Amino acid sequence: MINFTNIALAAFHMPKVGMGTLGISPSEASTVINEALSLGYRLFDCAPVYFNEKEIGDAFHESTSGVPRTDVFITSKLASPFHRPEHVEPALRKTLNDLRIGYLDLFLIHWPVAFKYVEFDPSARGWPDEEYAEIDESEGGARIDPNVSIRDTWTAMERLVDKGLVKYIGVANFPVMLLHDLLSYARIPPVVNQVEIHPYNQQSKLLSYCKSRNVAVQAYSPLGLPSYKETGEPDLLLDPVLKEIAAAHGVTVAQVCLQWSLQRGYHVIVKSSKRNHLEENLLVNHKNEYASNPIRLTSEEMDRIASLDRNLRFTRPDDWWKDMPVFN
Amino acid sequence: MINFTNIALAAFHMPKVGMGTLGISPSEASTVINEALSLGYRLFDCAPVYFNEKEIGDAFHESTSGVPRTDVFITSKLASPFHRPEHVEPALRKTLNDLRIGYLDLFLIHWPVAFKYVEFDPSARGWPDEEYAEIDESEGGARIDPNVSIRDTWTAMERLVDKGLVKYIGVANFPVMLLHDLLSYARIPPVVNQVEIHPYNQQSKLLSYCKSRNVAVQAYSPLGLPSYKETGEPDLLLDPVLKEIAAAHGVTVAQVCLQWSLQRGYHVIVKSSKRNHLEENLLVNHKNEYASNPIRLTSEEMDRIASLDRNLRFTRPDDWWKDMPVFN
Repeated sequence: MINFTNIALAAFHMPKVGMGTLGISPSEASTVINEALSLGYRLFDCAPVYFNEKEIGDAFHESTSGVPRTDVFITSKLASPFHRPEHVEPALRKTLNDLRIGYLDLFLIHWPVAFKYVEFDPSARGWPDEEYAEIDESEGGARIDPNVSIRDTWTAMERLVDKGLVKYIGVANFPVMLLHDLLSYARIPPVVNQVEIHPYNQQSKLLSYCKSRNVAVQAYSPLGLPSYKETGEPDLLLDPVLKEIAAAHGVTVAQVCLQWSLQRGYHVIVKSSKRNHLEENLLVNHKNEYASNPIRLTSEEMDRIASLDRNLRFTRPDDWWKDMPVFN
Repeated sequence: MINFTNIALAAFHMPKVGMGTLGISPSEASTVINEALSLGYRLFDCAPVYFNEKEIGDAFHESTSGVPRTDVFITSKLASPFHRPEHVEPALRKTLNDLRIGYLDLFLIHWPVAFKYVEFDPSARGWPDEEYAEIDESEGGARIDPNVSIRDTWTAMERLVDKGLVKYIGVANFPVMLLHDLLSYARIPPVVNQVEIHPYNQQSKLLSYCKSRNVAVQAYSPLGLPSYKETGEPDLLLDPVLKEIAAAHGVTVAQVCLQWSLQRGYHVIVKSSKRNHLEENLLVNHKNEYASNPIRLTSEEMDRIASLDRNLRFTRPDDWWKDMPVFN
């Protein structure tokens, strides 16, 4: 079992490679979490709208890995129906209850869009079904709550740090100007902006902005979301340039993508339920014992990958939310 | 001389085609403004950072057109060095003094980026030189004031409406999420978002969002900024598809672009110092006496133009402002 000791606030440090949990089914959570812990994963990126926090919490709690809680970095996210200040702490407490932990290392605003409140049972563990999801294709824009500002929500997020319920707070899917505005008034600044980055959506300007403002960038879908992409969308893992670079190094395209990310100076979230992929994805982590033979991309290879940018997002909220184009 | 009578607040109405003043040199202001008034232009889009408000004000004041002030819609903009609440009214009063008018019809936040305050002489008319410009290529990001939120500035903008100094307030160059956040807390909502739109940068999602929120969109550079574009950038006015459509109607490419804009349901700002271009650009305005033979694009032609989109902006603030990528 993980040892849940109290921790003191320390300088921000976050593992470079984290384990994503979107798409981990409740039935496989125990196996996958234990494999990830034993392989060396020390960051787990969770969210209530992945509908598996209860099972992941059970997996943490029942883990035989012996890894202490203080060695693990656990992130979760505030779902859109709970942006009103009075709902922020109850939503966090629900997540803490599901994950069976006393604090989060990092709590992110999942999307910069407030939805109308959805009631929930704070004493129950887990979410009964997708009615609590922030993503609702059928209702679209009708669920948006137009009267909650980012500042209202952020002030409530800051109070969670004051209370010691979360160590750090941050945001996800924030365009630059919204982050810039948040930084102007934040009493406790966001430490992270988690956004989609991969060779087809490189976000160089956002990266440069965040670096200049001391906001760490954490990339989701660094491999181009291979498990979710729609028919006809390009497959990053089959890209001929990436395949050529991978072959030259005797590694996989996934490893090239991850190493490219780390060399650009940001963090990554990877997800797999397959042990060999979990292991392969961690191999690039320089801070890890597996990195005995790390890949190093040449500047020429970095330039070749840079030329692949096509501003292609696989996660497109305006496909789900009518008239709510987050990235425009 | 324009007749400066007081006006009562009325339902928002804004001419569809407006006259832009960026690039009108002080020496030609009188001629151009008088020609525009005589041709039928009734909206003038000004800004202190165009460094010609004093001369345009003189041209209004000395106009022999006989057009009453109440028939003219005058817009100006809050420059970035004056975003702090205490500087907003002095900056407006400077613009009113330069334009020699008692109120503005519309006052916009020019860019969603606050710069450090630059002192000015409120009793002098005109700006002495470009030191007051919000755009300063040499200093870049060093001029950004990171501690002024959009809400701070907007609250000060609202007070200008309360005082009757401006009829309406709005924004320019606001990405969707920043506008969405502003709408959540605005006591007086913005009536306009003025942004770059033309066939190479169509902004369909922003248009759709603004329409759903009752924010009028006003397009700048609807002809692709022909006078400012850099060497090697594509010239919208030479686009073969647009030329073909123009030829089919016996009009110019500029007129096709403007008619396309109006059929999409937004307002446009056009600028020219040439009388024939001023006249030509106004021909598409259905509300005007010149529109006796208006162009009407077919849905097939609209679709052909839609296919020209390439997300190409001619106005790129991140070329001037280090690490301040407004549109990312």
